[in-house]
Amino acid sequence: AYDAGYSNWVENQLLAASNQIRKPKIAKGTRDFMPYQMAIRQKAFNIITDVFKRHGAVTIDTPVFELKETLTGKYGEDSKLIYDLADQGGEILSLRYDLTVPFARFCATYGIGTIKRYHISRVYRRDNPATNRGRFREFYQCDFDIAGHYGLMLPDSEVLKILTEILDELEIGRYEVKLNHRKLLDGILEVAGVPATKFRTICSSIDKLDKEPWSVVKTEMVEEKGISADVADRIGKYVCLKDTPMKLLTLLTTSEEYKSLNENSSAKTALDEFKVLFQYLSALGAVDKIMFDLSLARGLDYYTGVIYEAVFTESNLTGSIAGGGRYDNLVGMFNPSGRQVPAVGVSIGIERIFTIMEDKFKQTDVRTTETQVLVASAGSNMAEERMRLCAELWGKKVKAEMLYSVNPKMQEQIEYAIEQKIPFMVTIGENEVRDGVVQLKEVASKKQDTIARSVLAEEIFKRLQTLE
Amino acid sequence: AYDAGYSNWVENQLLAASNQIRKPKIAKGTRDFMPYQMAIRQKAFNIITDVFKRHGAVTIDTPVFELKETLTGKYGEDSKLIYDLADQGGEILSLRYDLTVPFARFCATYGIGTIKRYHISRVYRRDNPATNRGRFREFYQCDFDIAGHYGLMLPDSEVLKILTEILDELEIGRYEVKLNHRKLLDGILEVAGVPATKFRTICSSIDKLDKEPWSVVKTEMVEEKGISADVADRIGKYVCLKDTPMKLLTLLTTSEEYKSLNENSSAKTALDEFKVLFQYLSALGAVDKIMFDLSLARGLDYYTGVIYEAVFTESNLTGSIAGGGRYDNLVGMFNPSGRQVPAVGVSIGIERIFTIMEDKFKQTDVRTTETQVLVASAGSNMAEERMRLCAELWGKKVKAEMLYSVNPKMQEQIEYAIEQKIPFMVTIGENEVRDGVVQLKEVASKKQDTIARSVLAEEIFKRLQTLE
Repeated sequence: AYDAGYSNWVENQLLAASNQIRKPKIAKGTRDFMPYQMAIRQKAFNIITDVFKRHGAVTIDTPVFELKETLTGKYGEDSKLIYDLADQGGEILSLRYDLTVPFARFCATYGIGTIKRYHISRVYRRDNPATNRGRFREFYQCDFDIAGHYGLMLPDSEVLKILTEILDELEIGRYEVKLNHRKLLDGILEVAGVPATKFRTICSSIDKLDKEPWSVVKTEMVEEKGISADVADRIGKYVCLKDTPMKLLTLLTTSEEYKSLNENSSAKTALDEFKVLFQYLSALGAVDKIMFDLSLARGLDYYTGVIYEAVFTESNLTGSIAGGGRYDNLVGMFNPSGRQVPAVGVSIGIERIFTIMEDKFKQTDVRTTETQVLVASAGSNMAEERMRLCAELWGKKVKAEMLYSVNPKMQEQIEYAIEQKIPFMVTIGENEVRDGVVQLKEVASKKQDTIARSVLAEEIFKRLQTLE
Repeated sequence: AYDAGYSNWVENQLLAASNQIRKPKIAKGTRDFMPYQMAIRQKAFNIITDVFKRHGAVTIDTPVFELKETLTGKYGEDSKLIYDLADQGGEILSLRYDLTVPFARFCATYGIGTIKRYHISRVYRRDNPATNRGRFREFYQCDFDIAGHYGLMLPDSEVLKILTEILDELEIGRYEVKLNHRKLLDGILEVAGVPATKFRTICSSIDKLDKEPWSVVKTEMVEEKGISADVADRIGKYVCLKDTPMKLLTLLTTSEEYKSLNENSSAKTALDEFKVLFQYLSALGAVDKIMFDLSLARGLDYYTGVIYEAVFTESNLTGSIAGGGRYDNLVGMFNPSGRQVPAVGVSIGIERIFTIMEDKFKQTDVRTTETQVLVASAGSNMAEERMRLCAELWGKKVKAEMLYSVNPKMQEQIEYAIEQKIPFMVTIGENEVRDGVVQLKEVASKKQDTIARSVLAEEIFKRLQTLE
């Protein structure tokens, strides 16, 4: 009886607790955005979108969820991070993991053979969130891709140019774009004597070289992945190479030491492509921002050519801020005819960039509204008069606000204008209404003039221009 | 044996079919957006956002999914339309059903007592889609809300003003904003003699008056909802009333016939609020666009005061394009202290508006890029020269493209510029490169001039201004 009583008591306590209102929470790894954060975020999006548009891209949108089968088999091991919707009867759906696979599905669905598009939207990963380092479960990606059968390396070079333009214009500090080629990695592994079945797993060891020294990676290759120390050393001879593009390409193509690489057809294709790419990057003025880095492997399955990744080099934020490459076989995976549409693109992970920008801009410095004028009143019962004036201004596209009090105090109205950084304030009282005028004050300088109401909007626009 | 053989054969056929690549599909009730649709959509969003900003609103964002408990108990019967995420270990999550409940949760989470915000984002409903009539399972809402303890009807009147400004500026044809008050409906039902327990279900019958005649609705009330024919007739006397605001308010408050309504405290509150609201709407120049309609009930549980809904009146698209009202108790449902934050807002359902705009703009008339100049070349092996010129233009923020062929034909380049509606084309050949000039052609007029390369960007910007 005692036990039953106790367990009843526990149950009642739990019930009471669950009926109590708690501070509402949001899903792990997600976040809300405050107005000042949205203002900073909008700055970043505008810069990125401007660059995309400057290069002639259209934009598209796709649903936030796809049929699960669309995503299956595209992400290798990371597939376990895909969010599934509950089966509520009907289709089996998942939240999109990136924007690249939906883009490929889009091209196949509508039989699109050539497109240059950008897409800025949210993607979802059930990853271990590290929100303080800018890693979330819901985050924006800003993607730019060029699909179509085009001249060798012409789209590839423009995508890299776009990446450097964006990172330069965001002004978030020094960065480095690492460049490699899937076929060059394949060639290196072949030449080193790695069996083809182990390419993928050895690549994932190589990918750790940005965090671990060669000795650690070598041990993993030998002890966990089961290749001989000799083979590992032959790999090591290559993947520790990193230099400016032309210098490293010259070394690889002319030095006797790397002769066998040039005799491998896969590697030879990559080196020939790089020769063209580096010429183009020079013409585009972007080659100086790029490092040829043989340790870059990138995780995703679908890359088939050039690959790249951008990292910060002057902040304590580690990890990639952008990545991309060529994927010539992905659209074909969705095409009933099997028709391939070669494509190359870049994906910019805005969350880390946003974290840096948030540190840069102080919250108090950011305006969260664009209000140009506060419509104020002196004296009582002026609410309708303020409304009439607001409506006149809104009709002329002036951004105007008034306080939501029937009889606001003058001091209160002045304080609101100052606090909200509203540049102008117009005040009306009974006399002003009678005379068809207003008192127009520049809030910062406190300079005030009597202006005819009929020309108020024009006067505000004129003065706003001189303020800027 | 025969049966087993046949069923094996069927199974193998099914397996073969499922391994074949099919035309990829997207989730039911969702859609992709083509570039020309995105361009039209962007026009609509810009108009709406401009109005929101003109009224001094900040913007926020919230995650696309919430803890399921956040959404529970807020939508009445429609809760069955909520999309749940699969339970993959961790939290129980659902896709947001609207932007209002997440907004209330947001205010409570951060203890926000006053805010005027807009939020444009997608919401999700597992409804029966009618995509040809603009009803989808994933769709955008454009919400504007004012939360805070403010002067009576001051925020309410501005929200209605905003709604009319947006619908006017979208230029999508005639519309009507129906207006009613939850407390007036309560008063009517009380006066008519409906027991309080039946208020909600009788309201949902009333809500059908936009599609059904009174006789049908009355039958439902009597036969399904179990009220007497007398009570139904007393309700009918009110809910068939619809007129311009001042006229109907005068009728209700002065006619002997409706005296009992004025003696009901709930109805009296509503009528007094309307008196103030209509004065303000007059001052704002918005009262002419509004119909006082006693049949408007609106489904959602959380409204407590003024309610409204906008409908098209000149198109075959039926159903609401916007709706909203006052909800004074919703934030308090999330506040641990129980502190109430009164709020009023409007939600614009952009999908139906978008369907109308798509009909209005012909696909071929819409530019999907903003490219200002096509960089073309005459003669062979000019790819790098075109790149150099593009890079110069991009560096000066000119929107420029070149074809992705090493040696494009002149005709091909001209056709691309015409087809893409690019206003200018610059052509370089060996002579131009040597002399530091380009041939600048206005594509439409075919007028061509030789321009010094050093001033090309400035010249393009100058000419673009005269083109506009």
